[in-house]
Amino acid sequence: MTENPEFDFSLLARDNIPVRQFAADEKIFLAGEAGSSMFIVRSGKVAIKSGGMILESVGPGGLFGEMALIDGSPRSATAVATEDSEIAVIEQPGLLGLIQQNPKFALTVMQLMARRIRRTNESL
Amino acid sequence: MTENPEFDFSLLARDNIPVRQFAADEKIFLAGEAGSSMFIVRSGKVAIKSGGMILESVGPGGLFGEMALIDGSPRSATAVATEDSEIAVIEQPGLLGLIQQNPKFALTVMQLMARRIRRTNESL
Repeated sequence: MTENPEFDFSLLARDNIPVRQFAADEKIFLAGEAGSSMFIVRSGKVAIKSGGMILESVGPGGLFGEMALIDGSPRSATAVATEDSEIAVIEQPGLLGLIQQNPKFALTVMQLMARRIRRTNESL
Repeated sequence: MTENPEFDFSLLARDNIPVRQFAADEKIFLAGEAGSSMFIVRSGKVAIKSGGMILESVGPGGLFGEMALIDGSPRSATAVATEDSEIAVIEQPGLLGLIQQNPKFALTVMQLMARRIRRTNESL
C-alpha cells in the first residue's frame, strides 16, 4: 500500500532539514488545519485519512503534506503516525532553495502528485 | 475557465525554449499517445478534452501536458488549439536544468497540479 516514490535522503543531508519524532497514534496534522510544511518519513509509518478512510499509507522515503505547503490551502486530510516514526519537516521558507539545490527533489514531488492525479481520475 | 496560474515567461527567456505554431482546431496531442514534453501557451487558447468533454481551457501563460513529461505515462487527455496559438515546448532532457535555474517554475507546476488534485477530489 506504500505507493510513494522512494526519495534519496542523501540529497537533503546537506540542507539540515529538522527531524521530529512522533509516537504511534500521534496526529501529525488534522484535515482543515492551516499548514505550511511538508513531511518525509525517515522511519516508521504514517496513515493519511479522510472521512474515516485510509487514503494512503506512507513508509520510509515517502512524502506527504505537500499540498498545503505548495498552494497555502488547508490540510485536505488528517495524518497520523501508525508506528513510532521519525519525520523530516520541510518548511515553506526553505522550499525554493531546496528545489534549486535538489532539482530531483522537485521532480520527485511532481511524480508523486502526478500519480495522485492519475489514481484519482481512475476512481472517477 | 482559464484556471491555470500565471507563469512569468521572462523566467524562461534565457533558456531558449522552442516555440511552435498551431492553427485553430489543430491537435497538439491525443489521449493515449506517449509524450515527453509539456507546453506553455504564449498566445492563443488550448482545450484539454477527455471523452468529448472540455476539462480545461488554457490561455496565455497557462501550462498543460506536464503529466506525461513528469511520470512518463501516456497522455491522459487530448489537447487541441481552439485559436491560432504559439506554444512553448519543454522537453524532458532540459527539465532538471530548467527547475534548477528557475525554482519558481517548479513551484508553479506544483501549484497547478495541487489545484487539479483538489478540484478532482471535490468532484468525487
